[in-house]
Amino acid sequence: MSLDLATARAMIAAALDHGSAAGLKPLTAVVLDAGGHLIAAERSDGSSNKRFEIAFGKAHGAISLGMGSRALMARAEQQGYFVAAVTSAVGGALVPVPGGVLVKDGGGTVIGALGVTGDTSDHDEAAAVAGIESVGLLPQPD
Amino acid sequence: MSLDLATARAMIAAALDHGSAAGLKPLTAVVLDAGGHLIAAERSDGSSNKRFEIAFGKAHGAISLGMGSRALMARAEQQGYFVAAVTSAVGGALVPVPGGVLVKDGGGTVIGALGVTGDTSDHDEAAAVAGIESVGLLPQPD
Amino acid sequence: MSLDLATARAMIAAALDHGSAAGLKPLTAVVLDAGGHLIAAERSDGSSNKRFEIAFGKAHGAISLGMGSRALMARAEQQGYFVAAVTSAVGGALVPVPGGVLVKDGGGTVIGALGVTGDTSDHDEAAAVAGIESVGLLPQPD
Amino acid sequence: MSLDLATARAMIAAALDHGSAAGLKPLTAVVLDAGGHLIAAERSDGSSNKRFEIAFGKAHGAISLGMGSRALMARAEQQGYFVAAVTSAVGGALVPVPGGVLVKDGGGTVIGALGVTGDTSDHDEAAAVAGIESVGLLPQPD
Repeated sequence: MSLDLATARAMIAAALDHGSAAGLKPLTAVVLDAGGHLIAAERSDGSSNKRFEIAFGKAHGAISLGMGSRALMARAEQQGYFVAAVTSAVGGALVPVPGGVLVKDGGGTVIGALGVTGDTSDHDEAAAVAGIESVGLLPQPD
Repeated sequence: MSLDLATARAMIAAALDHGSAAGLKPLTAVVLDAGGHLIAAERSDGSSNKRFEIAFGKAHGAISLGMGSRALMARAEQQGYFVAAVTSAVGGALVPVPGGVLVKDGGGTVIGALGVTGDTSDHDEAAAVAGIESVGLLPQPD
Repeated sequence: MSLDLATARAMIAAALDHGSAAGLKPLTAVVLDAGGHLIAAERSDGSSNKRFEIAFGKAHGAISLGMGSRALMARAEQQGYFVAAVTSAVGGALVPVPGGVLVKDGGGTVIGALGVTGDTSDHDEAAAVAGIESVGLLPQPD
Repeated sequence: MSLDLATARAMIAAALDHGSAAGLKPLTAVVLDAGGHLIAAERSDGSSNKRFEIAFGKAHGAISLGMGSRALMARAEQQGYFVAAVTSAVGGALVPVPGGVLVKDGGGTVIGALGVTGDTSDHDEAAAVAGIESVGLLPQPD
């Protein structure tokens, strides 16, 4: 299966709702397809200017390397120069902190990624996970 | 006033609905705020990989220069080298064909831009205009 | 279905064989998946330094916009500034002459693109078409 | 002597076979000539989207500076700012971890580089070395 716009929109709505319910700062969420191309994005009122670019970078890093952005953070803490180099190699859009979560279907196939930013990285990731689970898909945060 | 997410979302929904009702090819729509920063974006199922980048480029060109992308096309036909240079100067995202429409409030203040792509440029622009008018704001396509 | 490496390798071999049999200049061929990411590439002996980048640009332009690169050439001849702008918007890799051919499965779904360069654009396209047909898939050159 | 396509193809096949035999994750391999230009590349089924860019960056870093990418890692650990600066200077494609191995002929002349990614950097390098040795050429991993 592949992600469609209706599902992407529902994941974003659930992620933003999670943030509101949990009292988080205003969130921005971006859904990419399996090829790393944008399907949908929303920046909440009060979310700062470049939050789209950050959410995109979390999701793009995850889908580019086939791992959640929490795993990219672990690698960055071990070998910062590697993650810096890969960021350059993939064209600049890779943000290695939690909040970029792979989206898998029931068979375990990666069909996209959801990136969230605005609050702490851990809270961002929780919102992304909530968004993915709300539509019956499987989140892989690391 | 400034554009909020709910209004941006409504403009996109109306633009995509216009496309469906008119039998257009699948559309992609992007809303930017007055600072040129993304508020919301949606790529319809069947819209090709890089349609987000094209819709973004139409809207970004419009808000960057303070004129609808139809005016940028007119300039490109007169002075292609000027538009090429400005595209480079603004960082690469400027697509000078119709479909990037400025959004004005009742007082005539520019509060954002809506970029649409997927069908012919004229049809893309009509969808963008329909989206903006649906929320009671004023479109400036050129 | 999605393109796998074995199929990509077979398409390239058939495209290069077509070139040899037809007496074409040394060819370079690149296969991308539906997301625009490289699966396989080969540059024949005697093919000049940057032929990979050209073959990649033909295939990347095609898959990015959902049309063969012959259609991009037609658009470039009508509105050169539009194609220049889109090239910038997609990050620089778009070569709008024939030879970038979409690969479709039996159901008509685009599953990748094959870009070929080295001889005339028409001959490059013929080699790409031969490569795609050799594995029982459907070429869309425009 | 210079690397030809048949040799590049054989090196890649041997590197990927090494990975399969050793139970490594799906590998991606890229061969560049002495001028740093691509001769051949293959991304195994299941290797994530941007693995080509990473393998290319390992090989490109190696051939650009005349040392295997293991030596670039050593430099990155000592002077991260130097490797960051060189990455920028060479255009962005330099990944300073093991797996980018110089290819030398019997006389010790560098005739290309093989970059491999997909598993741990040490395993990637072992696959690259196996690929180069399989065709009777000499690997220089650092």
